[in-house]
Amino acid sequence: MQEIGIGIIGTGFMGKSHAMAYRAAAGLTPGIHPVLVSVADIDAAAAARTALQFGIRRHTADWKALIHDPEVHVVSITSPNRFHLEHALEAIAAGKHVHCEKPVAPNSDDARVMLAAAEKAGVKTQVGFNYIKNPLLKLARTMIASGELGEITGFRGIHAEDFMASATEPYSWRLDPTGGAGAVADLGSHILSMARFLLGPITAVSADLETVVKQRPESAGSPVLKTIQVDDIARLTVKFARGCRGHIEANWVATGRKMQLGFEISGTKGSLSFSQERFNELQFYSVDNQGRHKGYQTLVAGPEHAPYGSFCPAAGHQLGFNDLKTIEMAEFIQSIVKNDISGPDFKEAWEIQRLVDAALVSSKEEKWIAI
Amino acid sequence: MQEIGIGIIGTGFMGKSHAMAYRAAAGLTPGIHPVLVSVADIDAAAAARTALQFGIRRHTADWKALIHDPEVHVVSITSPNRFHLEHALEAIAAGKHVHCEKPVAPNSDDARVMLAAAEKAGVKTQVGFNYIKNPLLKLARTMIASGELGEITGFRGIHAEDFMASATEPYSWRLDPTGGAGAVADLGSHILSMARFLLGPITAVSADLETVVKQRPESAGSPVLKTIQVDDIARLTVKFARGCRGHIEANWVATGRKMQLGFEISGTKGSLSFSQERFNELQFYSVDNQGRHKGYQTLVAGPEHAPYGSFCPAAGHQLGFNDLKTIEMAEFIQSIVKNDISGPDFKEAWEIQRLVDAALVSSKEEKWIAI
Amino acid sequence: MQEIGIGIIGTGFMGKSHAMAYRAAAGLTPGIHPVLVSVADIDAAAAARTALQFGIRRHTADWKALIHDPEVHVVSITSPNRFHLEHALEAIAAGKHVHCEKPVAPNSDDARVMLAAAEKAGVKTQVGFNYIKNPLLKLARTMIASGELGEITGFRGIHAEDFMASATEPYSWRLDPTGGAGAVADLGSHILSMARFLLGPITAVSADLETVVKQRPESAGSPVLKTIQVDDIARLTVKFARGCRGHIEANWVATGRKMQLGFEISGTKGSLSFSQERFNELQFYSVDNQGRHKGYQTLVAGPEHAPYGSFCPAAGHQLGFNDLKTIEMAEFIQSIVKNDISGPDFKEAWEIQRLVDAALVSSKEEKWIAI
Amino acid sequence: MQEIGIGIIGTGFMGKSHAMAYRAAAGLTPGIHPVLVSVADIDAAAAARTALQFGIRRHTADWKALIHDPEVHVVSITSPNRFHLEHALEAIAAGKHVHCEKPVAPNSDDARVMLAAAEKAGVKTQVGFNYIKNPLLKLARTMIASGELGEITGFRGIHAEDFMASATEPYSWRLDPTGGAGAVADLGSHILSMARFLLGPITAVSADLETVVKQRPESAGSPVLKTIQVDDIARLTVKFARGCRGHIEANWVATGRKMQLGFEISGTKGSLSFSQERFNELQFYSVDNQGRHKGYQTLVAGPEHAPYGSFCPAAGHQLGFNDLKTIEMAEFIQSIVKNDISGPDFKEAWEIQRLVDAALVSSKEEKWIAI
Repeated sequence: MQEIGIGIIGTGFMGKSHAMAYRAAAGLTPGIHPVLVSVADIDAAAAARTALQFGIRRHTADWKALIHDPEVHVVSITSPNRFHLEHALEAIAAGKHVHCEKPVAPNSDDARVMLAAAEKAGVKTQVGFNYIKNPLLKLARTMIASGELGEITGFRGIHAEDFMASATEPYSWRLDPTGGAGAVADLGSHILSMARFLLGPITAVSADLETVVKQRPESAGSPVLKTIQVDDIARLTVKFARGCRGHIEANWVATGRKMQLGFEISGTKGSLSFSQERFNELQFYSVDNQGRHKGYQTLVAGPEHAPYGSFCPAAGHQLGFNDLKTIEMAEFIQSIVKNDISGPDFKEAWEIQRLVDAALVSSKEEKWIAI
Repeated sequence: MQEIGIGIIGTGFMGKSHAMAYRAAAGLTPGIHPVLVSVADIDAAAAARTALQFGIRRHTADWKALIHDPEVHVVSITSPNRFHLEHALEAIAAGKHVHCEKPVAPNSDDARVMLAAAEKAGVKTQVGFNYIKNPLLKLARTMIASGELGEITGFRGIHAEDFMASATEPYSWRLDPTGGAGAVADLGSHILSMARFLLGPITAVSADLETVVKQRPESAGSPVLKTIQVDDIARLTVKFARGCRGHIEANWVATGRKMQLGFEISGTKGSLSFSQERFNELQFYSVDNQGRHKGYQTLVAGPEHAPYGSFCPAAGHQLGFNDLKTIEMAEFIQSIVKNDISGPDFKEAWEIQRLVDAALVSSKEEKWIAI
Repeated sequence: MQEIGIGIIGTGFMGKSHAMAYRAAAGLTPGIHPVLVSVADIDAAAAARTALQFGIRRHTADWKALIHDPEVHVVSITSPNRFHLEHALEAIAAGKHVHCEKPVAPNSDDARVMLAAAEKAGVKTQVGFNYIKNPLLKLARTMIASGELGEITGFRGIHAEDFMASATEPYSWRLDPTGGAGAVADLGSHILSMARFLLGPITAVSADLETVVKQRPESAGSPVLKTIQVDDIARLTVKFARGCRGHIEANWVATGRKMQLGFEISGTKGSLSFSQERFNELQFYSVDNQGRHKGYQTLVAGPEHAPYGSFCPAAGHQLGFNDLKTIEMAEFIQSIVKNDISGPDFKEAWEIQRLVDAALVSSKEEKWIAI
Repeated sequence: MQEIGIGIIGTGFMGKSHAMAYRAAAGLTPGIHPVLVSVADIDAAAAARTALQFGIRRHTADWKALIHDPEVHVVSITSPNRFHLEHALEAIAAGKHVHCEKPVAPNSDDARVMLAAAEKAGVKTQVGFNYIKNPLLKLARTMIASGELGEITGFRGIHAEDFMASATEPYSWRLDPTGGAGAVADLGSHILSMARFLLGPITAVSADLETVVKQRPESAGSPVLKTIQVDDIARLTVKFARGCRGHIEANWVATGRKMQLGFEISGTKGSLSFSQERFNELQFYSVDNQGRHKGYQTLVAGPEHAPYGSFCPAAGHQLGFNDLKTIEMAEFIQSIVKNDISGPDFKEAWEIQRLVDAALVSSKEEKWIAI
C-alpha cells in the first residue's frame, strides 16, 4: 500500500471539500492511500479546527511550511485566486504535485507561467473543474467521439446562477478587476471546460459582456457604493476546431437559478441534453433507431458508467456533488502514481483562460477574436 | 348577430388550420358569427375538397374572385410566401381586412409596402404569430409589465426544430434566398415576436448565421445537389430598448427537437421560464415571498387566464395548438368589429422583418446593427 | 356529402363542448358533414344563446321536441346525470343514435336498461370517456396488444383532482347518494375506462371508500351543514382477466392536482407511464434494445399517431382537451355511417358501472367482489 | 476530541458503504472522531482487502473477536439478514452500540427480541433506513408537523424497482421464505419507514401480495426451477392513527424503475410530492398563498436544510446516496455521545416489521389487520 501525503492550503469551503474528497478517494484508489498530512491557513485557529474536524495530522499558519513538509507530496491550493500563482510556483519549485482550484489565474499570461513551471519541473497538475468528472459526461464524450451523434452541428451551453443577483450583494474579490473577469471567468470557465471536454478546441470567440448591477455596496450593508467593472453576464458565440459553432452564456445574476450548468449538443444522428440541476440524468435522442419509437431517452447514471459503481450498487441511487470532487481527487492521485494525465491540468486551465481573455477583448472591440 | 364573411386563399395545412380556427372562433365571439364564405386554390379540386370538408359556401381557382366576393369581409392569406405581397395589396385595395401568415414578406421593404397600403386604406391586419396567443404568455406579459419580476436583466430565447436536420431533406421554397432568410426568418420570427411581445422593442442585433447543410438534393431523392445559401442556424445577441440584453437562437437542424420554442427571462425580483413543448405550463420564481419557501413554481393554464375558460372548464385540461389559432382568429374578428388592434399586425410584422434583415447584415459584416 | 343532424340536450359546459366538437369534427370526417340542428334546455334563453353562439339551427325548451325533430339523427345528452335514463330511452325509442355523458347512470342496473334498449333498437351509442381518445393511448393499447411490453405484470392508475378539496365546497348533485357513488363514479370511471381500454376486463375488486369531508354547507356559504354519504377517495385493488393485478385510486380532494389522471403499466419486456397533465407525452421503457442505452423514452404525439395529423402538421404542436372531444365525436359519427362500434358505448358504460358498484359493496363488506 | 471506535461486520456493498460513511461523518461531528477500528468477514482475504482500502486498523475472520475488541464501541452489522439476530445479541451483550442494516429480522418476533435486549442493556441502536435522512424529508416532516399542509387527507407511497423483474434472475436469500417476506419486506419497509416518519403510526393494514414470477432458476443459468413463495408486488391499503388513510405499493419487478421510492401527501391546506429518483427536490403546493399565483413549487435542497450545508456551499449542488448514509452515521454517533435517540432504532424496526407481518396475514386471510 502506497501512501500519498496531502497538504491543503486554505480552510474555506473548498479547503474542507478537498479534505472530504481525499478521505473518500481511498475507496476508488485500491493500493494507494491518500493521507491528510497538513492544512495551512493564515488564521491559525481555523487551521487547527479543520485539522481536528477531518483528522489531518498537522496544521500551520505558514503555507510555505506546508509546501516544504517532507511528508507532503501533493499540494491542494484552495486559497483566494490572487495567491494561486505564488503558491503554485513555490510548490512546483519544491517538486510537489499541485492541485489548484479554478480559476487558476486572473489571466492567461499568469496561467502560462504556472503551466511552464509545472512542465519544466515535471510535476503533475490538476485544476478543479469538477463537473466534468461526472460519469454521465464521460459517457457523453464517448458517445460523441464514437460518432453516435454523427457529425456535430451545434452547441448551446450555459452556466447560470443567482448568487450575485441582488444589488445588495456587496463588493468582493470576485468583483476585483485585477483578479480578471467576472461571471465569464467564474462560471464561464466551467461551461467552457465542459464544451472543450466534449467537443474539443474552440478557435474563435465573439462575445458581449455586460455589467448588470452597475454599483454595489463597498461591504455588506455599507451605504458607500463602488462601481463594478467586471461582467455579470457574458454571451459568447464560438467556433470549434471541429467545424461546428455554438453559443455559451455565463450569468451570475440569473434569479432563481442555483446550478443551471448545462448544454445541448446536436448532431446529424442524434443529440444530447444535460443540466447539472439533475446531473444523474442525460437526455439522448437518436435518429438511428431502426423503426423503433422516437423520442428523447433519459439515461440514468448507473454502475455501467464507471466509477459510479464505486459509490452506489445500482442505478437510481445517485451521485452527489462531493462524489464528483472525490472522483476528481482519486483520478489525480492515480495519475500521479501511474505518471499519466487525468484531466484538466494547468495546460487545460491555460487554454480556458485564453478563451476568457479573448471574450474580454472581443466584447470591448466588438469583433471576433481568433485563439 | 353580426356575420363576418371569411375568404381563405390556400388549402395547404395552414389553409385548413384557418378554416378550423374560424369555425371554432364562434365560441369566443358572442354576437359575432364568422362565416366561411369562400376558399381559393389554383388547384380547383383542392378548393372544392376543402369547401366540402369545412362547409365553406363557395370555392374558386381564382384568388381575385375570392377577394372581390362581396360577402367576403376578411381575407386570410395562406398561400406561399412569395405571393403574400400581391394578394395582400389586392385585398387591401378592395377594402378587405387581411390576415396573412408569417413571414409576410421576404424582406422588410416589402413588409413596409404592405403596412403602408393597409394604413392608408384603414383596414385591419393580422399576422400568424399564433404562439403569443397563449393565455400563459399573456400572463407572462402582464407579470412583466406590472413589475412582478422587477427590472428585467436578461433574456434567452430559442426556436429550434429538426425538420431540416437531414441532409436528404431536399431543396424547397424555404431555402430559396429570394424569399429571404432561412431559419432566422422561418423560426426566428416566432421567437422574435415573443421577445417583443414580452419585453418590447429590440434596438440592436449582433448575429452569426450559419449554413450547416451546405448542399441538398434539388428535389426529393435527386442525385443533383444544390448549394444552399440561407441559414440553418442563427445566433443573435440583442439589445432591448428597455435596457436589458439577450440571446436568441433559431435552428431548424436541431436533431430531436420538435417545438423547442421557449425563453427564460430574469429580473431583479423574479424570473420566468417557458417552453412551447409544454405550453400549458409557465415556470415562475419569485424572490419576494416573505419568508416562504423558495423555488420555481409551475403555473398551469386555467380559467383565470382568459380566454382559457372559453375552451375548458378547469385547469389541467389543456389547450392545444389549434386553440391558439382559434384565439388568434377570434381576437382578429373582435378587433375588426370593435375597430381596435388585437395583436401582431402588419406593423409588427414589419418590425420583426427589420430584425431579420439586421441579422443578415450583421452576420455578413460581423458587426452590431442598430435598428 | 352526407349530412348528419345533431341535437344537443343541455347547454352547460359539456353542452358547449359537444357543440364545439361536432363543429370541429367535420375536419376528420371527409364526406360526412355533422350539422348542428337543435339544442334544448329547460332554460329557453340559455338554449337561444347557445344556438346563436354556435350557429345551431333551432333551439327549444322541450327536450322531447328535440329528440323527435326529424332532422336530428344523433342526440347528445349532456343533462344532469339523473335525467340520462329518461332522455336516452326516449331517444332510443325514437330510433336516434345516442351519445351520453358519463356516468350514464347512478348504478349498473339503470345502465343495463339503457344498454338493453339500445341493443334492441339497433341504434349506435357512445359515452363520454374522452381521455381514451388520445392518439398516444391508442399507441399504448397497440403496444400492449402487440406484445411490445411482454406479459403485463402490474398496473397503477389514478384520477385525482382537487375540486372538492375545500370543506366550503357546498353540497351538490355530485354528492347526492341517489345519484350513485362519489369520486369513484365521477373520476374513478375515467381511470377504470382507461384500465379496461388498455388491459381488458377486470374480474375482481377489493375497495376502500372514504368520506374525507364529513359535512358540507347545504349550499354555497350556508351555515347549515349536510352530512356527506358518498366517497371522496376510493382505493381499489383489482384483478384483470389477463392475469395481472393493479391498484386504482379516485380522489377529488387531492389538493393541488388538477388533472392527475394517469397510469403506470409494467410488463416483462417494457413499461409505460402516462399522465393526463402532459397528455401529449408517453413514457416508454424497453428491456429489449439490443445493447443500446437504457432509459425511459419520451414519446411525443405526432402525425404518426392518427388522427393527430388531422389537427397538427408536425409533432410538438400538441393536441388540447377539446381535440380529444372532437376525435370522440368524429369517431362516433363515422361509426354511425360505417355501422360499426367506435369506442366506449353503453355496453362499456355498463361494464364500468358494474365495477363502481362492486367497489361500493366491497368497501362496505370489506371483501373481494368478483364481477 | 472524542474517539469512537467502529467495527464493521460484513464487506459486501453495505459494509463498504458503512466504511465510507463513517469516514465522511467526521465532517459532521465536530469534536467527535469516528475511527474505523476493525472489519470482520468470514472471508479473511475480503476483510483484509477492505481494511486496506478504507484504512481500517484491523481485520478479522471472527465476528465475535470484532465485537469483543475493546477499542470497538459501535458495531455495524451488514451481514446477511439471517445472522442479524445472533450478531446483534452478542454485540448488545458486550455492551456495544449497534447499527444494523434493514430488515433487522425475518419477522417481528425476532425484531422484538433484539429490541428487548437493547433496551435492557441500555445501548443505542439504529437501523439503515437511510432515505429518511434526506434533509428535504426532514423539511417535509416539519411542514406536516407545523400544520403547513393542514389536516392530512391522504397518502400514496411506493417503492418500486426492477432488479427482480427478469424471470432469469435466480433464487437467492431474498427469496427464502424463512427470511420473511419478499418485496414488502425488502422495499416495503423503506416506504413504510417513510410513511411513519412523516405521518406517524399506522393502525391497520389491508394487503394483497402477489408472486409474479412463479418460478426462478435455482442458481444463475440453472435449468432447475424453484417455486417462489414470497411476494414480488405488495399492495397495501393503510389507516394512520392520525385519521387519514393511504395506499402503499412495494414492487421489485417494476420494469424500468431503478429507485421509484416516493410519496404524495395531500392535506387541507397543501400537498407534497417526492420521488427518490430526484431526491434533492420536493414538490410543494399551498392553497394558502394570499392571492398569489398557484402551482406546485419545486423546493431544492440547500444550506437552509441542515445538514445539507455541511456537504455543499449552496443549493443546486446536490447530495448523493452516500451523503444520506453519512448523515445516518453522523447522527447515530452524535446520539451515542449525547445519549439521545437519533432516528430509526430497533423500536422503529420492530414497528415496521409488525406492519410487514400484518400485510402477510391480511393478504392470506383477505381481511383488514389491526396493529
